Amino acid sequence: MYKLIHKDGQAKRGELHTVHGVIQTPVFMNVATVAAIKGAVSTEDLLGLNTQVALSNTYHLHVRPGDEVIRKLGGLHKFMVWDRPILTDSGGFQVFSLAKLRKIREEGVEFQSHIDGHKIFMGPEESMRIQSNLGSTIAMAFDECPSSTAERAYVQDSVDRTTRWLERCRTEMKRLNGLEDTLNPKQMLFGITQGAIYEDIRMEHAKRIAEMDLDGYAIGGLAVGETHDEMYRIIEATVPYLPQDKPTYLMGVGTPANILEAVERGVDFFDCVYPSRNGRHGHVYTNKGKMNMFNAKYELDSDPIEEGCGCPTCRRYSRAYIRHLLKAKEMLGMRLCVLHNLYFYNTMMEEVRKAIEEDRFQEYKKMRLEGFEQSSR
Amino acid sequence: MYKLIHKDGQAKRGELHTVHGVIQTPVFMNVATVAAIKGAVSTEDLLGLNTQVALSNTYHLHVRPGDEVIRKLGGLHKFMVWDRPILTDSGGFQVFSLAKLRKIREEGVEFQSHIDGHKIFMGPEESMRIQSNLGSTIAMAFDECPSSTAERAYVQDSVDRTTRWLERCRTEMKRLNGLEDTLNPKQMLFGITQGAIYEDIRMEHAKRIAEMDLDGYAIGGLAVGETHDEMYRIIEATVPYLPQDKPTYLMGVGTPANILEAVERGVDFFDCVYPSRNGRHGHVYTNKGKMNMFNAKYELDSDPIEEGCGCPTCRRYSRAYIRHLLKAKEMLGMRLCVLHNLYFYNTMMEEVRKAIEEDRFQEYKKMRLEGFEQSSR
Repeated sequence: MYKLIHKDGQAKRGELHTVHGVIQTPVFMNVATVAAIKGAVSTEDLLGLNTQVALSNTYHLHVRPGDEVIRKLGGLHKFMVWDRPILTDSGGFQVFSLAKLRKIREEGVEFQSHIDGHKIFMGPEESMRIQSNLGSTIAMAFDECPSSTAERAYVQDSVDRTTRWLERCRTEMKRLNGLEDTLNPKQMLFGITQGAIYEDIRMEHAKRIAEMDLDGYAIGGLAVGETHDEMYRIIEATVPYLPQDKPTYLMGVGTPANILEAVERGVDFFDCVYPSRNGRHGHVYTNKGKMNMFNAKYELDSDPIEEGCGCPTCRRYSRAYIRHLLKAKEMLGMRLCVLHNLYFYNTMMEEVRKAIEEDRFQEYKKMRLEGFEQSSR
Repeated sequence: MYKLIHKDGQAKRGELHTVHGVIQTPVFMNVATVAAIKGAVSTEDLLGLNTQVALSNTYHLHVRPGDEVIRKLGGLHKFMVWDRPILTDSGGFQVFSLAKLRKIREEGVEFQSHIDGHKIFMGPEESMRIQSNLGSTIAMAFDECPSSTAERAYVQDSVDRTTRWLERCRTEMKRLNGLEDTLNPKQMLFGITQGAIYEDIRMEHAKRIAEMDLDGYAIGGLAVGETHDEMYRIIEATVPYLPQDKPTYLMGVGTPANILEAVERGVDFFDCVYPSRNGRHGHVYTNKGKMNMFNAKYELDSDPIEEGCGCPTCRRYSRAYIRHLLKAKEMLGMRLCVLHNLYFYNTMMEEVRKAIEEDRFQEYKKMRLEGFEQSSR
């Protein structure tokens, strides 16, 4: 289902064929945590932002409104009115980062909802059932994401358990996809490599799960506190052990520069809350680096955020207006910044794909990184 | 500039020709307090909601970002990117309702900004200069809006001062419109009748200012705590003394039922924060009355807010999705409700205009009022 179209160095230009359409890679997935992009951005807006894939969070949707509710309403695509691909994470990361009082056992994890404190149990089977109820295009395996500073012995045990969990995920997903009333019988499963910053554990884990013939492979447990150099080192150590004929997904990454570095190292899929979170705080991305739209110097600035940008915000509104809205705490200010940022990320990925096709990714990356640094000069 | 096209009873169907286009009346003006509709609604969105006129607040824009800033940026139309008519209020109402520690003198009012407490003086000339800097299509006269429970003697004194202020507004507006570098030399001025709930003071005031040949006349100081019946009584007492060949504007009103009652009594212009404020709280208008979208009964409801509604929300999203967004405190939930409500108000006004043209306003009003009451059954 993944077709490698072209390689430029290690950078891959590919296509993932799904039941909800073809994903051109490398791709940035736009984060719609609770089935909505934060910043009052609707799925209708996403159509104007060159968005290919929306990403939603299993844990959040399980606790509210409930995956059974979404299933009864026809699944996540119908619920949020989005007919293109949706990837759902497994809930693992949120269980380990958001939920309180968790207890990890071989079966899975017991934890308290961050909404109302009620007890929830989630293991590989539960995660697959929730994602099957959501009917996403791509489901992620249920894994443990150990801290980047965890002890080696803990990480090794955790990774071994994550492998056993992955086998259970695969079995359960196969069963669910075969049920007569399943929402998406072609739901794909991506496995996740873990191993904190221990290269040998990462390599070993990648090798083991590569043999399982999954629809794609993710690198998890990065961008959780380690340095950028450590992150790049782990990507370099891991990617060679993942199948070339499957998409590679670097979870939760990152800045535009992080993405360019990871594309260079062979990564196809990305997701990150930065464009929407930064947008809500008035921080916008441009070809010359980030801008803080609260800055007083934009008070009388009638230019768009970025000259020549084709996003719905820059085509119409000035820096001065956006700054005013943000200062006045008008929701519209946040919305306009988020629209711009998502367009920026999605457009950069378009350019990345073109650059790889034309064997000039190195040149493109250099040009972009030099541009981003201009704002700090 | 106002053309009375047709009358059905006292209900007027008219047109106000302005430098920013023709306004079809009766009309509901969409409130953009600080040059933005609350609920992350942009002026681009307004184009899809059949909006004819945006209304912005002089007081708010004077304190932030400052009317001089907006003037330097080319005026309010350019600032918020809206080339259709804009009405600005005079700041009077906000000075009396929002600002702290105000002192009223013959010259004007001294008060403290609600943002940072700094002292501001505003009188008729200041209000006109601010509105001239904003370059709105229609400026409102600077008036005092006494409480609906104020003593008769106070109200009489206040109304007399408001008349003297109106003369000063007219003189200053004329001067400003004649300046070479004025933004909108065709800026219109509407006078405001006051008089709390004293019919004789209202009638006398209406007669006096009707002689001043202004571009339009507003009924101010209503919907500030009096009953609906008192409000309708005052409208009935005032409208006959205002010129038929000028538009009549009932400020800050109101519910859909209030608007229908006032149209019947000869009112042309309306504005109210209800559709946007209620929308942000998940309260939406339908032909069968209001709905609270937080209600648990919508959890699995895949219908739109209102079947057959052509608004951007109902064309795409379900009650269940909107309820979920509101419960999850996603800004998108508020936005979708505000879009629906503004469309509802603007569409009702379209129907009102058609009903008057076809001499069936009474019938239309009866049908609407009966519909609105269904939700409480």
